[in-house]
Amino acid sequence: MKMAHLITNCSFSTSPAVQTFSSSPNYCRSVGQLQNSKSSNLSLKSCSRRQKKSYVTCASAAVQGQTQTPLTGSPQAYEHSSSKPKKVMVIGGDGYCGWATALHLSNKGYAVAIVDNLVRRLFDHQLGLDSLTPITSIQNRVRRWKSLTGKTIQLFIGDICDFEFLSEAFKSFEPDAAVHFGEQRSAPYSMIDRSRAVYTQHNNVIGTLNVLFAMKEYSEECHLVKLGTMGEYGTPNIDIEEGFITVTHNGRTDILPYPKQASSFYHLSKVHDSHNIAFTCKAWGIRATDLNQGVVYGVRTDETAMHEELSNRFDYDGVFGTALNRFCVQAAVGHPLTVYGKGGQTRGYLDIRDTVQCVELAIANPAKPGEFRVFNQFTEQFSVNELAKLVTAAGAKLGLEVQTKSVPNPRVEAEEHYYNAKHTKLIELGLVPHLLSDSLLDSLLNFAIQYKDRVDTAQIMPSVLWKKMGAKPRTVSV
Amino acid sequence: MKMAHLITNCSFSTSPAVQTFSSSPNYCRSVGQLQNSKSSNLSLKSCSRRQKKSYVTCASAAVQGQTQTPLTGSPQAYEHSSSKPKKVMVIGGDGYCGWATALHLSNKGYAVAIVDNLVRRLFDHQLGLDSLTPITSIQNRVRRWKSLTGKTIQLFIGDICDFEFLSEAFKSFEPDAAVHFGEQRSAPYSMIDRSRAVYTQHNNVIGTLNVLFAMKEYSEECHLVKLGTMGEYGTPNIDIEEGFITVTHNGRTDILPYPKQASSFYHLSKVHDSHNIAFTCKAWGIRATDLNQGVVYGVRTDETAMHEELSNRFDYDGVFGTALNRFCVQAAVGHPLTVYGKGGQTRGYLDIRDTVQCVELAIANPAKPGEFRVFNQFTEQFSVNELAKLVTAAGAKLGLEVQTKSVPNPRVEAEEHYYNAKHTKLIELGLVPHLLSDSLLDSLLNFAIQYKDRVDTAQIMPSVLWKKMGAKPRTVSV
Repeated sequence: MKMAHLITNCSFSTSPAVQTFSSSPNYCRSVGQLQNSKSSNLSLKSCSRRQKKSYVTCASAAVQGQTQTPLTGSPQAYEHSSSKPKKVMVIGGDGYCGWATALHLSNKGYAVAIVDNLVRRLFDHQLGLDSLTPITSIQNRVRRWKSLTGKTIQLFIGDICDFEFLSEAFKSFEPDAAVHFGEQRSAPYSMIDRSRAVYTQHNNVIGTLNVLFAMKEYSEECHLVKLGTMGEYGTPNIDIEEGFITVTHNGRTDILPYPKQASSFYHLSKVHDSHNIAFTCKAWGIRATDLNQGVVYGVRTDETAMHEELSNRFDYDGVFGTALNRFCVQAAVGHPLTVYGKGGQTRGYLDIRDTVQCVELAIANPAKPGEFRVFNQFTEQFSVNELAKLVTAAGAKLGLEVQTKSVPNPRVEAEEHYYNAKHTKLIELGLVPHLLSDSLLDSLLNFAIQYKDRVDTAQIMPSVLWKKMGAKPRTVSV
Repeated sequence: MKMAHLITNCSFSTSPAVQTFSSSPNYCRSVGQLQNSKSSNLSLKSCSRRQKKSYVTCASAAVQGQTQTPLTGSPQAYEHSSSKPKKVMVIGGDGYCGWATALHLSNKGYAVAIVDNLVRRLFDHQLGLDSLTPITSIQNRVRRWKSLTGKTIQLFIGDICDFEFLSEAFKSFEPDAAVHFGEQRSAPYSMIDRSRAVYTQHNNVIGTLNVLFAMKEYSEECHLVKLGTMGEYGTPNIDIEEGFITVTHNGRTDILPYPKQASSFYHLSKVHDSHNIAFTCKAWGIRATDLNQGVVYGVRTDETAMHEELSNRFDYDGVFGTALNRFCVQAAVGHPLTVYGKGGQTRGYLDIRDTVQCVELAIANPAKPGEFRVFNQFTEQFSVNELAKLVTAAGAKLGLEVQTKSVPNPRVEAEEHYYNAKHTKLIELGLVPHLLSDSLLDSLLNFAIQYKDRVDTAQIMPSVLWKKMGAKPRTVSV
């Protein structure tokens, strides 16, 4: 497969030395990377603690020009005692939901490792996008976290589609749970062109297959917490249940997987993942929770708000920006809220503070061996028109005159439809939702206003982005 | 992705000259292949009829040491008149079902092109397997067909995961229908190891995505006839419908995709394909028929029986051999019939003569633009025990003493279960089934006896094969 625009086969991981509390951090990188690196002071040595057939070598590294907080391991996190904390691998831990989750779990006492190839940052470069909030490097992020809290987050920088890299990460970290955010997560991105459609399905499906095989090979007890999407269900004319539905047909009854009707190559990739995971639970005894998440809004969590170097990314563009976040930015800069078509499209939504809470609840209450659980992870339903009205009203209170404009819908979707999706399982586990109150909307709008000088209005409309990218998709999704 | 065992990026296609009735056949091959070829007398020239960015060059070729039947084009097949025959591209046309279908369609007056990377022949080399029937090269096959019938079958030898190759094939042939058999089609193969699981899903899912994009780009009116599998449904405790089911839930009703419960990475790849195809029908107006085929038995069709060089392959091994065909070979050589576990596993079955008939019916009665149709393509249901009994009785009539042996089931599956799958849509289109009569079983057994000296008993049991391959799968499927 040709994906020259996505060459990301880098490898960067903490070495066993970090686990044994060395005060001089070691990093594993691919030889090619090391030889080309100019920012690090590196000395190569062979990485021979375990039998390796991979190309990875280890190097002592002192990254220059960055905060010099030592990265010593946290004894309470890695001690091999009966009271040792659960180890959680956060795949995709540099992204919007992943970063907030990694910090939250670390703060709660879990031993956390982030696995990420940082390709999300490459997408920004390639598409000419930028987070509304300035974000620093992942290395600075974990260093700042360590300096503020004393807690270590291990880093494994590499591509989970590279099974040798992923195997080393699993063997080295030995996770009790793997939270898998590490997928291309934008529906519009997956619809830009063939290359990106194929990339999305290859990356997401093969990456998840590799995670499943790594668990089977190296961590049979590990609990997979996989981020799915409510978009897997589509908009059926009946109530949406949590993963399964009891069907009575011609006098017989069975509990069956809820039928899937995804509406982008991205959403389809999550459907494929769900089927693959369900099979491995049955065939291999994998334990898995599929979190069919709604549209996430907000940006600050208790942890990311602690320091500007811990800031989360905030996407407001037509490719990666999610509905409510985009509307707040549009309102802040005086751009009309862009409603696709009739605006009756209804979806589940949740605050990013509930994302991190839900993931923690899933980890703390793991699936049984062989169990494939599905939780619908959202707290409230809104139509696009309802969101636009809420933002208009909240803007008015802040003195903003917010307009709404209907634009041609780039997606093939129902613009008026029945939608009633169940979401009780996480509530039963203890989720206390942050609902979309007036004060929450107020703070989200104020946040957008605070950063409005950084807004590039050319990023707001997908049609402008498509033009910049030389592509004209026939269908995209929010 | 590392798949050194599957390097198949060869390219071999008939040039425009064949379409314009040249009496000296031209072939397109990759430069690398041409330079290494010793069996052909080749002269390179640039292939510049259309703007090309690919690596393909054209060469006049007279293949030596083979039947010298001229490959002149068939005027009635390629004439651009109002009465021109439908052009059908048979992807995977060198395989078991694909070859029989290509000949059948050609015989019925369709203009046929075969697209195949011949990787199925490579699997035989790699796994140490061989068809019970000797089969000749695809080049000899189409040459013999031409000499017997005067009908031309075009060849495009290459990998549909290579979009440049596939695009050239679509632009050159301009199919009215594309029959897609071009997938890794063995469940046990997909379960051998991680590499083959990943290969199966990558090859099948990305190949099909490429076919969909090629249709969107170059043949919007083209009808996709895609081979799915009855295995997509699993064994639910309710009747299996054809693709969709009406569900009434909490007082509301909708027609939804029938829930999928596949039980191997191969079967899952077909589930993924079905979801992807359904989406493109809705989003792009693709017209598609998904043929959820049962287990195919038999080998001879009217066309493959015409000459030994037209013989179809007959797999009896534990990886690619299908249930009834394997039982007949076991009976012929005095090996006990190997029943996995209790033998109550029930599936839909059909004669290969019905495969070619069903595909033709689908092509002759195409789906409408935007329509995603699903037909369950089988004619009868049998449990494994029922098949064993039928073969035992048929063997007794031929003087064979047939034993049956239960072996540990390598699959995770229900060995006793409800199974009632609908299959009326193809009957409604005119299918006249070849049911599994005593005389049919008799001829199948006699066929196996005719070739019994070619049987390698080491290929019969999957466990022996796994050992040979150094793999120990935890689940496989028939």
